[in-house]
Amino acid sequence: MDDFIFQNPTRIYFGKSHEANIGRIAAQYGKCVLLHYGGQSAERSGLLPLIRKELTEAGLHFFELGGVQPNPRLSLVYKGIELCKSNHIDLVLAVGGGSAIDSAKAIAAGTLYDGDVWDFYIGKAVPEKALPVGTVLTIPAAGSESSPGSVITKEEGQLKRAVNADCLFPRFSVLNPERCYTLPPAQIANGVTDIMCHLQERYFTNSKPVEFTDRLIEATLRTVIATAPRVLANPTSYDDWAELMWAGTIAHNELLNTGRVGDWASHDIEHELSALYDIAHGAGLAIITPAWMKYTLRHDIARFAQYAERVWRVEDNYFDPERVAREGIARLEAFWRSIGQKVRLSEIGIDERHFTQMALKATDGEAHTVGHFVPLRAVDIEAIYRLAL
Amino acid sequence: MDDFIFQNPTRIYFGKSHEANIGRIAAQYGKCVLLHYGGQSAERSGLLPLIRKELTEAGLHFFELGGVQPNPRLSLVYKGIELCKSNHIDLVLAVGGGSAIDSAKAIAAGTLYDGDVWDFYIGKAVPEKALPVGTVLTIPAAGSESSPGSVITKEEGQLKRAVNADCLFPRFSVLNPERCYTLPPAQIANGVTDIMCHLQERYFTNSKPVEFTDRLIEATLRTVIATAPRVLANPTSYDDWAELMWAGTIAHNELLNTGRVGDWASHDIEHELSALYDIAHGAGLAIITPAWMKYTLRHDIARFAQYAERVWRVEDNYFDPERVAREGIARLEAFWRSIGQKVRLSEIGIDERHFTQMALKATDGEAHTVGHFVPLRAVDIEAIYRLAL
Repeated sequence: MDDFIFQNPTRIYFGKSHEANIGRIAAQYGKCVLLHYGGQSAERSGLLPLIRKELTEAGLHFFELGGVQPNPRLSLVYKGIELCKSNHIDLVLAVGGGSAIDSAKAIAAGTLYDGDVWDFYIGKAVPEKALPVGTVLTIPAAGSESSPGSVITKEEGQLKRAVNADCLFPRFSVLNPERCYTLPPAQIANGVTDIMCHLQERYFTNSKPVEFTDRLIEATLRTVIATAPRVLANPTSYDDWAELMWAGTIAHNELLNTGRVGDWASHDIEHELSALYDIAHGAGLAIITPAWMKYTLRHDIARFAQYAERVWRVEDNYFDPERVAREGIARLEAFWRSIGQKVRLSEIGIDERHFTQMALKATDGEAHTVGHFVPLRAVDIEAIYRLAL
Repeated sequence: MDDFIFQNPTRIYFGKSHEANIGRIAAQYGKCVLLHYGGQSAERSGLLPLIRKELTEAGLHFFELGGVQPNPRLSLVYKGIELCKSNHIDLVLAVGGGSAIDSAKAIAAGTLYDGDVWDFYIGKAVPEKALPVGTVLTIPAAGSESSPGSVITKEEGQLKRAVNADCLFPRFSVLNPERCYTLPPAQIANGVTDIMCHLQERYFTNSKPVEFTDRLIEATLRTVIATAPRVLANPTSYDDWAELMWAGTIAHNELLNTGRVGDWASHDIEHELSALYDIAHGAGLAIITPAWMKYTLRHDIARFAQYAERVWRVEDNYFDPERVAREGIARLEAFWRSIGQKVRLSEIGIDERHFTQMALKATDGEAHTVGHFVPLRAVDIEAIYRLAL
């Protein structure tokens, strides 16, 4: 097990009963709130009206910035920073999924930074401080509600980049599984895929031994695999949403990272896909991950075989562990198909024309690599895109 | 899943590399430290000399209060409070296991309280604030290094009582698995038993469904069961100690409590045993828990059968789930015996003479109950003591 430091300060309010206290919760962080959200679904569902009412009753002032898009854009972040600076905002309250939350984190850090917030995303500067961020989560997926990460897309050059910093942990997150009832099936599938990939990126590691966190990751994956088909079949099943939503948070709150270095190449490889084609991150991951697994399988067959047996209940075969490992990947693909995902690029109309360019962008040139389990050069990534065709 | 609020603020420094930074870590919390510890083992191992050196080099003043005993005593807590008040202590730094840490928490809360600190332990007052507590853990067991709990024994009347409060979470804890190398086998076994009971107390719940946390608890129990025999066989196995130590913290850091109400009767029933006979808490739990399980089994045979199959790998038998359940309890007893525990009161020379008195103390009289899975009256507890003979 690698040495580590672990602390997750986010206060989680989970269940049906906390939305009615959002005003009082937010009031702990100041007087003036930026309410930040995406499209109309939170308006239609009554969530935004409820939050406005709660904030008002708690005596808070608030400004609003809607319009966050999937793969949240830098241009809106700039607008948010302007709003925060000119209105002395104390708290950025994100309502929605990972896009609204990641955008809120960028705004929160950018407001207290003298330079260009994009500096944080290209490694030119490290976020040291940020306005407090709170979240009201409406979809289990990105895990950003209790993570130190933020992913933003710069429109110019279609650059999708991530930053991690302790000051980006939300101070609090309100999770009510009932808010997931109205999610469309494709969004559910994308969220489920994203959660599974957060777990799998951490699972495939060279740190060893990591028995305990292996088992925790397997337990979380089994929960997601068990509950996802149930929420798709019965979108108003509170109990199943609750399991899935809490699993989605734990999948990405850094606990399952402790003592191990995850891989994260699939995330980088996918980011190029969603940046260029503007597809959902989860949809891209369902295509990239199996190809990545096939490409890296022989680096550690035992690990893939353990994954196959423990997560997918593939029968043991110590005489041919690669067979066990490959069956695990096949079951992952079959599972993703069963929840409505495509698992090949050709199925979503993407061909090879941009592979070289995307691979070079993923690694920032031929000299660099992405991924820790198996460091991949641009040429490897291009091969993975081909395997995904 | 029940609604819940979850936040664990303790910063964990895990591994070999952090002890050298204890001075700098402690310096974040002030200038003046009370160093609080038990007997001579931390002195002999070189840990206390190292900490004194680190604190001094970081420019901190410190006072010392050693002599914490297992089942830590209220009288020493009073001494610590006096020391803190008269020396303007900023941080109480506990070095040792659960006893030193629980005692430090009591001192930290008592220092900022005008009344008698024992008020917190008998429910007469709620701790609202406490001095910051840091810990340097030397044994995986109590989980107090990242929990909001403290258990103290009042010598007069042999009262052993617990309190939980957010202000009692340590601010930081330093966990170096190497510090466990010199633990005697009996202490290892008691620590392992305590960890397993923290998990089992949470597992046996009436909250349902709680699939995700069930799986996380099972994963943690499997880790403890796998690694405990290895550290007993090879006390200097860093990797196995690391798994066990981290599992011991997660077992009790409130995560595995989320969305469910644990039982905790066995802990209460055991507390009377260790208060009266001054045996180790873990040793008492190894005797009380199987008896408690046999007594409550029929309340939810499915839960006991799931526990048996998933944790102990008992073969499924849907035609006779009680048989599966009973086999699980038998395997728990066999495992505890295998690590050197006694699992019957008669084996440690305790007979029935005080059963009635202990049962009445555990429940604070005939009218009250302990435990949530199955609320138990004094008469039930007496029956459990008898089952444990």
